[in-house]
Amino acid sequence: MAPTLKEATGNQSSWDTLLPDLPKGPLCRYRRKASFNWKEMAVFLDGEDIIQLKNRIFSALESDPLFAHHPGEDLCREKYQELTFLRCKRLFEYNFLTLQEIRENPLKILCLLSCMGMYDWSPSLQYLLHCGVFAGPILSASERFADFVKQIYEMKVFGCFALTELSHGTNTKGIRTTATFDPSTQEFIIHTPDFEAAKFWVGNMGKHATHAVVYAQLYTPDGQCHGLHSFIVQIRDTKSLLPVPGVMVGDIGMKLGQNGLDNGFAMFHSVRIPKENLLNMAGDVTPEGRYSSSVKDAKERFSAALGSLSTGRIFITAISITNLKLALSIAIRFSAARRQFGPTDDEEIPVLEYQMQVDLGREIHALCAASKPLVSWTAQQAVQECREACGGHGYLAMNRLGDIRNDSDPNCTYEGENNVLLQQTSNYLMSWMNCIRDKAPFESPLGTIKVLQDYHHILGWKFTANSVEDCMDSSVPLAAYKWLVCYLLKESDLKLRKEKQSGRSDFEAKNNCQVYYCRSLAIAFIEQTALQRYHDYTHDPSIPSTLQPVLKKLSALYGLWSLSKHLAVLYQGGYASGEQAGKFIQNAILELCYRLKDDAVALVDVFAPPDFILNSPIAKANGELYKNMWAEILQGSKTLNRPSWWAELCINKPVIGRLRSKL
Amino acid sequence: MAPTLKEATGNQSSWDTLLPDLPKGPLCRYRRKASFNWKEMAVFLDGEDIIQLKNRIFSALESDPLFAHHPGEDLCREKYQELTFLRCKRLFEYNFLTLQEIRENPLKILCLLSCMGMYDWSPSLQYLLHCGVFAGPILSASERFADFVKQIYEMKVFGCFALTELSHGTNTKGIRTTATFDPSTQEFIIHTPDFEAAKFWVGNMGKHATHAVVYAQLYTPDGQCHGLHSFIVQIRDTKSLLPVPGVMVGDIGMKLGQNGLDNGFAMFHSVRIPKENLLNMAGDVTPEGRYSSSVKDAKERFSAALGSLSTGRIFITAISITNLKLALSIAIRFSAARRQFGPTDDEEIPVLEYQMQVDLGREIHALCAASKPLVSWTAQQAVQECREACGGHGYLAMNRLGDIRNDSDPNCTYEGENNVLLQQTSNYLMSWMNCIRDKAPFESPLGTIKVLQDYHHILGWKFTANSVEDCMDSSVPLAAYKWLVCYLLKESDLKLRKEKQSGRSDFEAKNNCQVYYCRSLAIAFIEQTALQRYHDYTHDPSIPSTLQPVLKKLSALYGLWSLSKHLAVLYQGGYASGEQAGKFIQNAILELCYRLKDDAVALVDVFAPPDFILNSPIAKANGELYKNMWAEILQGSKTLNRPSWWAELCINKPVIGRLRSKL
Repeated sequence: MAPTLKEATGNQSSWDTLLPDLPKGPLCRYRRKASFNWKEMAVFLDGEDIIQLKNRIFSALESDPLFAHHPGEDLCREKYQELTFLRCKRLFEYNFLTLQEIRENPLKILCLLSCMGMYDWSPSLQYLLHCGVFAGPILSASERFADFVKQIYEMKVFGCFALTELSHGTNTKGIRTTATFDPSTQEFIIHTPDFEAAKFWVGNMGKHATHAVVYAQLYTPDGQCHGLHSFIVQIRDTKSLLPVPGVMVGDIGMKLGQNGLDNGFAMFHSVRIPKENLLNMAGDVTPEGRYSSSVKDAKERFSAALGSLSTGRIFITAISITNLKLALSIAIRFSAARRQFGPTDDEEIPVLEYQMQVDLGREIHALCAASKPLVSWTAQQAVQECREACGGHGYLAMNRLGDIRNDSDPNCTYEGENNVLLQQTSNYLMSWMNCIRDKAPFESPLGTIKVLQDYHHILGWKFTANSVEDCMDSSVPLAAYKWLVCYLLKESDLKLRKEKQSGRSDFEAKNNCQVYYCRSLAIAFIEQTALQRYHDYTHDPSIPSTLQPVLKKLSALYGLWSLSKHLAVLYQGGYASGEQAGKFIQNAILELCYRLKDDAVALVDVFAPPDFILNSPIAKANGELYKNMWAEILQGSKTLNRPSWWAELCINKPVIGRLRSKL
Repeated sequence: MAPTLKEATGNQSSWDTLLPDLPKGPLCRYRRKASFNWKEMAVFLDGEDIIQLKNRIFSALESDPLFAHHPGEDLCREKYQELTFLRCKRLFEYNFLTLQEIRENPLKILCLLSCMGMYDWSPSLQYLLHCGVFAGPILSASERFADFVKQIYEMKVFGCFALTELSHGTNTKGIRTTATFDPSTQEFIIHTPDFEAAKFWVGNMGKHATHAVVYAQLYTPDGQCHGLHSFIVQIRDTKSLLPVPGVMVGDIGMKLGQNGLDNGFAMFHSVRIPKENLLNMAGDVTPEGRYSSSVKDAKERFSAALGSLSTGRIFITAISITNLKLALSIAIRFSAARRQFGPTDDEEIPVLEYQMQVDLGREIHALCAASKPLVSWTAQQAVQECREACGGHGYLAMNRLGDIRNDSDPNCTYEGENNVLLQQTSNYLMSWMNCIRDKAPFESPLGTIKVLQDYHHILGWKFTANSVEDCMDSSVPLAAYKWLVCYLLKESDLKLRKEKQSGRSDFEAKNNCQVYYCRSLAIAFIEQTALQRYHDYTHDPSIPSTLQPVLKKLSALYGLWSLSKHLAVLYQGGYASGEQAGKFIQNAILELCYRLKDDAVALVDVFAPPDFILNSPIAKANGELYKNMWAEILQGSKTLNRPSWWAELCINKPVIGRLRSKL
């Protein structure tokens, strides 16, 4: 979970070898004022190994004509899809990470994904969907797919993951595609009852996939349904890429973003597949057609079938953080170079990466279910604020904040709609109320719910800071968050019991407890967890003394800023009282923004990718924003052209009101 | 300002004539449950006259092949710009409103703009920029432009409004284009000193405009600068549409939205224009080159020169409200027809029934808000919430929430960046502090600052509601808002004085008072104003008793929901105390959402345009969301096609790791 603390190794000359100097220009003014060395920070946070991997990826893309940018060109969606596929294919040829390297440091996959995504999410996601999301459940099924897995990694087949249907996404139990076993041929018959049950939204399915992992209700010959299972189904011929008989497959059309990626639909008309294509992680069928499963409980079987979704949520957290880095790089460099606006906008905070990488059962699930909404919403809102902070120039497509926002947007929806996910986290937290009441011990392998152990004690805490200066450490918001989690848990539990006592069904009662109660609880819990980690990290004595002050300020600012959104509850529940408490928090936020202002450009230098990857004229490292924009504009092939329809303006004049009589 | 109360005239049969029945389908369930008749509400709110105008515009567009939709077609930007221009030109031929009609009811212009915008903002804005923003300052200058105005409305010329420069937008005083008078030829010489002073972002300038209203610093031959003035400058030949000598003009490229509109740039290389082309509303130059002005004060002259920007802000408010109507029409109809989960496995309930979803309804009330930052931010955030509330299907371009969001986005920036505008409002409010201290009388022709008259008295108010039911009327949030405005005014004033006392310059002191003080004050003030209007409107005894209950509920919900964002300040400043106050407000919001849930579909029926205009398969009036989407998808010309680059997948396989050695 906690990022491993690394010794800040090396010295200026070793940092210079890893990270070349940034070009001189208007931003130097701020770089000189920074309280720390951005190269030292980058080496400390990432380590040499990761920086070298980043350099390798970034320079490969920059040197490869297939990845060249085409400024001013209006790429139509079809061309963009073709280019995306060619770029995805090229990643197989680069093979940036070997299995060996991944085994040594699995974080490198996130690094690869993020570096690729900084260039463009469409090819990165196409690659991830094939190698990860499609391959994942096949890898975890059983040995019998070893050959097929080899074909996947050699791109002999191309895959997609088909769960969602047109009328069912979030409610996966409502999936209506069926897989009926026919013992006479030892086959499953995959069938779509009607168009509302068509598989829908499936990434890679629109144009490319030859095979799909299809989720369907498994029926045995006795007519019994055994719930959701997954199957490998071929959908297109691998030689001709034409649909196989019985499969109607196509592209679902233009989206708000990620348009290089081909999301598709498919309907199956009694398509027969070999019995072996059942991904038998939770259950299997005998040749005679009897269902057998090592997992007796239907609910658990369901969870096992969908287990791979947690990985997806971790990826989305990483994607959102990457988007946040891009948007901040653009907005902060722009704000620092754009003289009209002054140094930096003090509302938006450079949020350093708070890493979340986990490994255990229910707790993992509860954490992923809440970190994904927290980070995807934070990114979405921050990207929009960055867009606005860059004014009109932020609205110009070439500066990229639009693509970042539009590509980031679906993170709030796919792999579990954010509000639905938060409900799973609050359910998990509420499930501990019995232990709290009975003073029974807690099982928290990751320690994230340790806070509940002191529930009764913490509920008696009060806000005690006596000055703004008192609030300048993240321990102050952290204490407030602990109280907040306990208080919201108490209130949610009370509210739920009241709803049930008034005769409402479980379903209705839970539904009525979301807004202001369970939803707030889940958000406060995940914010507290993130802050705890970041607080511990920044206060560790092994952090180089050159970097610790700025990291501690960021930790305090993140904590106070997040907390300020809950200020009303702190007052309402009696944790805070009087005019001063709120003012201390607000003034500490303002003071921290002021103190961090001169570090903002250097902080962005730590995580900004090279100019070629960042690809935003207003955000180039040299800070010459107008020159860079002007150059980009004049590169457009038709920038100065007369429009081809000029005669419609000059010659064919409208007859005013000609059509009025027809109204 | 306040909408005129109209008698709800007519009866069912007259309503039916004006407003045809909506098609039957899954939404009927909710329509039957509505507490009011949507047709009666529409007639009451708009009046017959406006409804007839709407019908005329909507049906003209639907019957005109030039306005046909092309589902599944990937319109490139150039084609989109051409189509936009042709559609704009067609509006001259329809001439929907005569000058006579506009004089009788100026609100009809907003109606026309909104109806057109509901179809597509690009042609509507092109038309508005020419007929309004370009023509406006010319109309208000002097009689000598009468002939030119005639040419404008006959589209013999095509115009744009050129104020912003590449490096100066918000700070208009920093404009660097010059206009130097040459008495020897009786001409002004328009000149751009360097590319950073190029006119930039100018709508209609990219491809179409033949003339521009150009803002420049006026210099007399004695070398004196007389500040910003506007001039008519020809930029393209009216016969050939080629640039005139000395003008370099072009398109600034792709934007995040509104891509049918051609935003452009221009640089002037000592371009000579006749003396008469000075728009002499505030100042003029004698033939000898002496400057003369009826407005002596330079500041006032500056205001006069930019006076037309206020109109622009009113239009933006109308645009934002229209976008909100579109997004809500889509999200609420979708939510009412989309079923997901349910109390039992075989009974799924419409997502509208979920508490989180109903929160959307809260935003309905922002419709009556009255300021550009408030409304543009509300619209931007609400459209994003609508997008998320529609899940994945909201991310599909065909359902239009993306275009609405992307086209709505610049409203936060142009015609005055929102935060800068709010500063102007707070400055105005702070200017009354002396009157408050001296107990001097107030001048408030519109009565919006009447609240400050009781400043000292109001500061002593407390939250007094004793139950949730007590809070169900907008008088409760309204009273809280009055306290809030006075309290934030007091605090902002204190903070400013403290900053000044500590030796900070005026600029610095004001800058340090924005966050948590002046900015909050301006927002609270405009929310209070909007709520006061809406409260008075909905409580007027002349409102039909059939409509009043739902309107009053909306008023209370809008007030409470807006207020809930300020809850911390209510506690902090001592207006509220104890756990109950906050709970009453929160529970009243939830209860109102619950009571309004069954009215949501009918409320949307009141303002939703016809299906052809709304153009969103998931939001059609019949509510058959899957059928409508499926039909739209299959209309795409290449939906089922094999990609042209299929061999790149099937035949030309990647050699895994081929390029790794080159890294």
